[in-house]
Amino acid sequence: MATPATGNRPTPERIFNTLNAYQQAAALKTAIEVDVFTAIGAGANTAATIAAKTGAAEKGVRVLCDYMTIQGFLTKENGRYALTQESALFLDRKSPACLASMVGFLGGEELRDNFEFLTQAVRKGGSVWSEGSDNTKPNDEFWVAFARSMAPLTVPSAEFIGGLIRAQEGQPMKVLDIAAGHGMYGISIARKNPKAEVAALDWPNVLQVAQENAKKFGVADRYSVRPGSAFEAEMGTGYDYALLTNIFHHFDTAGCETLMRRVHAALKPGGKAITLEFVPNDDRVSPPTAAAFSLIMLANTDAGDAYTFSEYEKMFRNAGFVKSTLHPVPEMPQQVIVSEKPA
Amino acid sequence: MATPATGNRPTPERIFNTLNAYQQAAALKTAIEVDVFTAIGAGANTAATIAAKTGAAEKGVRVLCDYMTIQGFLTKENGRYALTQESALFLDRKSPACLASMVGFLGGEELRDNFEFLTQAVRKGGSVWSEGSDNTKPNDEFWVAFARSMAPLTVPSAEFIGGLIRAQEGQPMKVLDIAAGHGMYGISIARKNPKAEVAALDWPNVLQVAQENAKKFGVADRYSVRPGSAFEAEMGTGYDYALLTNIFHHFDTAGCETLMRRVHAALKPGGKAITLEFVPNDDRVSPPTAAAFSLIMLANTDAGDAYTFSEYEKMFRNAGFVKSTLHPVPEMPQQVIVSEKPA
Repeated sequence: MATPATGNRPTPERIFNTLNAYQQAAALKTAIEVDVFTAIGAGANTAATIAAKTGAAEKGVRVLCDYMTIQGFLTKENGRYALTQESALFLDRKSPACLASMVGFLGGEELRDNFEFLTQAVRKGGSVWSEGSDNTKPNDEFWVAFARSMAPLTVPSAEFIGGLIRAQEGQPMKVLDIAAGHGMYGISIARKNPKAEVAALDWPNVLQVAQENAKKFGVADRYSVRPGSAFEAEMGTGYDYALLTNIFHHFDTAGCETLMRRVHAALKPGGKAITLEFVPNDDRVSPPTAAAFSLIMLANTDAGDAYTFSEYEKMFRNAGFVKSTLHPVPEMPQQVIVSEKPA
Repeated sequence: MATPATGNRPTPERIFNTLNAYQQAAALKTAIEVDVFTAIGAGANTAATIAAKTGAAEKGVRVLCDYMTIQGFLTKENGRYALTQESALFLDRKSPACLASMVGFLGGEELRDNFEFLTQAVRKGGSVWSEGSDNTKPNDEFWVAFARSMAPLTVPSAEFIGGLIRAQEGQPMKVLDIAAGHGMYGISIARKNPKAEVAALDWPNVLQVAQENAKKFGVADRYSVRPGSAFEAEMGTGYDYALLTNIFHHFDTAGCETLMRRVHAALKPGGKAITLEFVPNDDRVSPPTAAAFSLIMLANTDAGDAYTFSEYEKMFRNAGFVKSTLHPVPEMPQQVIVSEKPA
């Protein structure tokens, strides 16, 4: 919809469509909630049969599925809808890679409500969300929702991190998973490497979700928890790896450095900090998804940001790490930074 | 942001970005409200100078302007922002074609709130908005907001309609502007043709806006009003043209036929009904903006829709019109249908 005007002279259409772009989010959320993708995956392919399967009105289904077709999440030929490769893989609940649960966090009210106050956030230079924008304080309910809904999205990044640290080679390793959330980054390593021991740090209620997942994936006996704030909890020492997935973007540079100094102390000599982040280029406007993440942090945090690699390199050097390297995660908009503590 | 995945295998990025698409709408609304476009048009081109001019925080401005750059509404070179052709024309308040006021209606709470209940609307097959979804009832405040904010968007279509009926040739003509709103379609004809007389029909409070505009554009002496519902108000007779701009999409086909029969009675023999609408192709999924309009009507009306040309042709034939022709409006996603009452 919001594609650039192709003619020589600009038209009002793109502005109209951008002001209506909240409808794209609402429609995908609704399509997931009504579950038209699973219905189509199971063989229903007309508005009437999808309506019968989902219990929704035929007109509602027709209009919604047409919109999903316009958005490229379905195809339509002679009045019959079909899944695209993308929706079959990620939106049909029968697919093992289904991401439908993401709607529970990304489509939740907290995040969207903060964008209702985006103008105030731009004027202030940070979130006006009084309850949850300071991420050094517990906000259990919000992060439990995150942990429950965002786990499927971790798979490609968790696989990639496991490969980077050669988890599959089976060497004994102690891993600290900081702000573990659903725990899937650490759990993925423990599944690949039967000699890996993982300690997960997060707020107590969130750690319950991580522990459920550790049990579900059969690694609970090598899984321990360290409840509390990443800035205050007892982290322990002697770790080979510390995982810092999607945490730094919540804080200002001083906060990131403070946290990274604690990580430095917890790692053994030669240990590595593994950071997963949205890392824009120095121009801060590319690549699009990583660069745009900065706005999400402006709306939702006091002082968070999407930092560039040179900013991270400097913060991590200040915290005692000698070398950081950047690794794009295949198929994902995020990157991994590997930082070494001197041996 | 929400561009199709280009690789062979789909990635989660587009789903992530689509669930976040409400942020595109919020960011453009905020950029208009903070008025970064006018500030940049007036020469500010760094986050610091734009912040100084707008009174917003430098960090907020930097993040917002980067996001606007990612969305293609600004450019950025060496940390300096510039307007695109599109934003200079439509978003800088100094531009005569500025559309910034649209945010007052399209970004308003009513429309967006209805999309909070889109899942329920799909299940029901129509809006769950109890107050305003029946557009045969007055809903003054909503339509006054519409009239005040959407007038600038009418210019290309109003110019086109004026040309279609050869207003500039200066023949005497009586024009009935149904659901006139801001009145700009009829007023535009009166401005082009000093012998045109325009009667505007709408709810009383809305007509005040139309009358203000008629005065502002110097045609008040040839401008009369007919307050009330398009289904009930006394329309008068003997019109050469009846304008039906963006009205049919609010009703079911029976309602459209009823209204068009009233229009037929009001026109003189050989008179023409001029309909401006979002008219999707028979596939209902193209062209994108016209086809997507159907979802807006599902969320906001009891029984409205974006009808195809063959559906309009049939409804208008049932109402007594012998011939309808379709005319795309240049630079706009809408089309005009000209329908003739037999001479």
